[in-house]
Amino acid sequence: MSYLKAWRAAIVHCIADPKDVGIKAAYEYFEDGLLVIQDDKIHAIGEAADLLQTLPNNTPIEHYPDAVITPGFIDTHIHYPQTDMIGSYGEQLLTWLNTYTFPEESKFADKVHAREVADRFLKELLRNGTTTALVFGTVHKVSVDAFFEACEVHNLRMICGKVMMDRNAPDYLTDTPETSYLESKQLIETWHNKGRLHYAITPRFAPTSSDEQLQLAGKLLSEYDDVYMHTHLSENKDECAWVQDLFPESTNYLDVYDQHKLLSERSVFAHGIHLCDNEYHRLHETGSAISFCPTSNLFIGSGLFKLNKAEEHKVNVGLGTDIGGGTSFSMLQTMNEAYKVIQLQNENLNPIKSLYLSTLGGARALRLEDKIGNLTIGSEADFVILDKKATPLLTSRLALSKGIEETLFVFMTIGDDRAIQATYSAGQCVHQR
Amino acid sequence: MSYLKAWRAAIVHCIADPKDVGIKAAYEYFEDGLLVIQDDKIHAIGEAADLLQTLPNNTPIEHYPDAVITPGFIDTHIHYPQTDMIGSYGEQLLTWLNTYTFPEESKFADKVHAREVADRFLKELLRNGTTTALVFGTVHKVSVDAFFEACEVHNLRMICGKVMMDRNAPDYLTDTPETSYLESKQLIETWHNKGRLHYAITPRFAPTSSDEQLQLAGKLLSEYDDVYMHTHLSENKDECAWVQDLFPESTNYLDVYDQHKLLSERSVFAHGIHLCDNEYHRLHETGSAISFCPTSNLFIGSGLFKLNKAEEHKVNVGLGTDIGGGTSFSMLQTMNEAYKVIQLQNENLNPIKSLYLSTLGGARALRLEDKIGNLTIGSEADFVILDKKATPLLTSRLALSKGIEETLFVFMTIGDDRAIQATYSAGQCVHQR
Repeated sequence: MSYLKAWRAAIVHCIADPKDVGIKAAYEYFEDGLLVIQDDKIHAIGEAADLLQTLPNNTPIEHYPDAVITPGFIDTHIHYPQTDMIGSYGEQLLTWLNTYTFPEESKFADKVHAREVADRFLKELLRNGTTTALVFGTVHKVSVDAFFEACEVHNLRMICGKVMMDRNAPDYLTDTPETSYLESKQLIETWHNKGRLHYAITPRFAPTSSDEQLQLAGKLLSEYDDVYMHTHLSENKDECAWVQDLFPESTNYLDVYDQHKLLSERSVFAHGIHLCDNEYHRLHETGSAISFCPTSNLFIGSGLFKLNKAEEHKVNVGLGTDIGGGTSFSMLQTMNEAYKVIQLQNENLNPIKSLYLSTLGGARALRLEDKIGNLTIGSEADFVILDKKATPLLTSRLALSKGIEETLFVFMTIGDDRAIQATYSAGQCVHQR
Repeated sequence: MSYLKAWRAAIVHCIADPKDVGIKAAYEYFEDGLLVIQDDKIHAIGEAADLLQTLPNNTPIEHYPDAVITPGFIDTHIHYPQTDMIGSYGEQLLTWLNTYTFPEESKFADKVHAREVADRFLKELLRNGTTTALVFGTVHKVSVDAFFEACEVHNLRMICGKVMMDRNAPDYLTDTPETSYLESKQLIETWHNKGRLHYAITPRFAPTSSDEQLQLAGKLLSEYDDVYMHTHLSENKDECAWVQDLFPESTNYLDVYDQHKLLSERSVFAHGIHLCDNEYHRLHETGSAISFCPTSNLFIGSGLFKLNKAEEHKVNVGLGTDIGGGTSFSMLQTMNEAYKVIQLQNENLNPIKSLYLSTLGGARALRLEDKIGNLTIGSEADFVILDKKATPLLTSRLALSKGIEETLFVFMTIGDDRAIQATYSAGQCVHQR
């Protein structure tokens, strides 16, 4: 049975990319706003003074005078099996994989373990206001079954895939071109577009896949209209050199994926730090997206993402935490670090642009902007309630804020999971602080 | 009347700099430790199994099976009047000062306001486990009175000074060479070595002081054996160029201070990012110290501190939050960012080195290692209790930790003020979560 429910608070959401329309035209803000939900969708959004007059008298209203409602955050790159290895010390990418990642991922052959971690992982995402993520599983098919089963409990819009990896990794963690193709296909048939779930074909990265495996991945991608492709690209300089050694016939790192037909409107490449102009251009041309993962890029010492180059070439960009290379599940803290990465390059990251990257920009990178990413009427009701009084420091600092842009920036700088008072997915409360 | 009290938990503290003796010899660790306090001092430290046998039967013992005790953290550079401007958007140093800092600091002519902020500031420090800090006031003498009065309430070991600034700043925020000398001298006479308090002569930075003011600051420093000098150095490239313009007769930025006799064993220079070998050498030669402020250096886009160069030249280094340029009061989060700054330079910052920098290293930078910085017998009982179960993520991650070094690193990576279960100053509880 259809019902209406409303939340009254300050509301802000992006309706365009600031780079296209300027900062002020990129967002809508309702200082005393009302968000009205019908079942799982946004029914109305606007100033409370206006909307309250049209609302049926018996509509339940939750009033948060000290809160800001934003769309749920979208994390465009994260590894759920790395939840328990966050904060692993002292290595850069390639050693880090061998020392920490591969042993940890081996545990996900056990579905019970996988499900237990998936449940904790989702709880952590929701504590942090993240309602959609593009997620790596492990090489084990069951890791993805476990993850999607956990997502169904909360009716979350999530994307995941089984890792494809047939070389340069321990035996206990490799598949073959054929099994990776078949198992991925089975997972697509089972899970893709089931409820709010989607599948991503997930070769780990070029160095751990043979030509044959990448070719079958490309074949699989061509067999479906709307399946995703999710991998890593140009994170670390040693990695880039290694790719050049392994694929001497490729003109650059991205070209390895390109030659195997893995670039598409639903292809998302994590990192993309060390790219040449041709690579940006080709990403744009194919409608592929980059996931910018600042806490990880700093923690693993990978380098500084060049947002201005991506913008110049009109490449879609979303933000990612990249747990466990990243150091925080919080998209607010990820925005804090994104700001710092851009500052180190003598540029500014406006808080509206940060909000865009972590909501509508992420949705566009995932081609889900007709469903999520902002709060326009008809969108799915994925949103978060940010508490301006979550900590003593937030309370005193925000009391002096002169507008929503400053308020957002303060949340992004000193906010964390505590700032998330509640998280809603498809109109249902999935986290309450 | 003298009394004993004990805390039972894991205990770790540094006894040397890892660069001098190696990681393992730089710290003591007691897995099931006992810390015994007599009045305000450390009376005993060791394994609980040993110490419990010698302790009088009626000694009260607090037992924390899920905690780690460390020395209180030492923040070697912070501005208390900037508490309310944390997270100010979009500028690098010089514009940032004019846009945000100077207007905010003007409010501290009002002692009531100053005291209110000082109280909140100290509460925030203690929430974050910081028991000693080297603190900027404003140009107003009353700002320092207010701060020290607030410190006396908690019996904290704190260092503060009135800003000296007689040019290149708004009229409402400048003093003169003479008034800055006289007022600083009055503050020294009133506060220096009163209880646990110390005074720091505090020229803001070279560009806002005339030659005459810096000369009188040097004169004042020479008039006392153990007064501090606290200022900024080589934070930002535009600043460095400006200093060269303003002081054409100086061979480098540090030389400006050197010519005015402001280098000493109690001189602490914040930042020191863009230094030449001569400057490192001269800092070492004079026993001066640098405060490394990673969250600020990233947030204001200043650059990456070269810890290896400072070590090579044997310069004392402590860590600082540099609130309000910094983005967190938490020294744990400051260690997280310090790690990232070092990773971006292709090196590692070991967690024991981080612990050193934020405890004993900070104490040595401040020449207070005979009083604070570790938990050796006779030291003042400034310590914190870190809760391994402070958040769901800390709980699950630390359950897998393989030793104290990993445990510390995880606290530094994903811990924040919540990880501080309690803070003790001179044996008294000054914060309980």
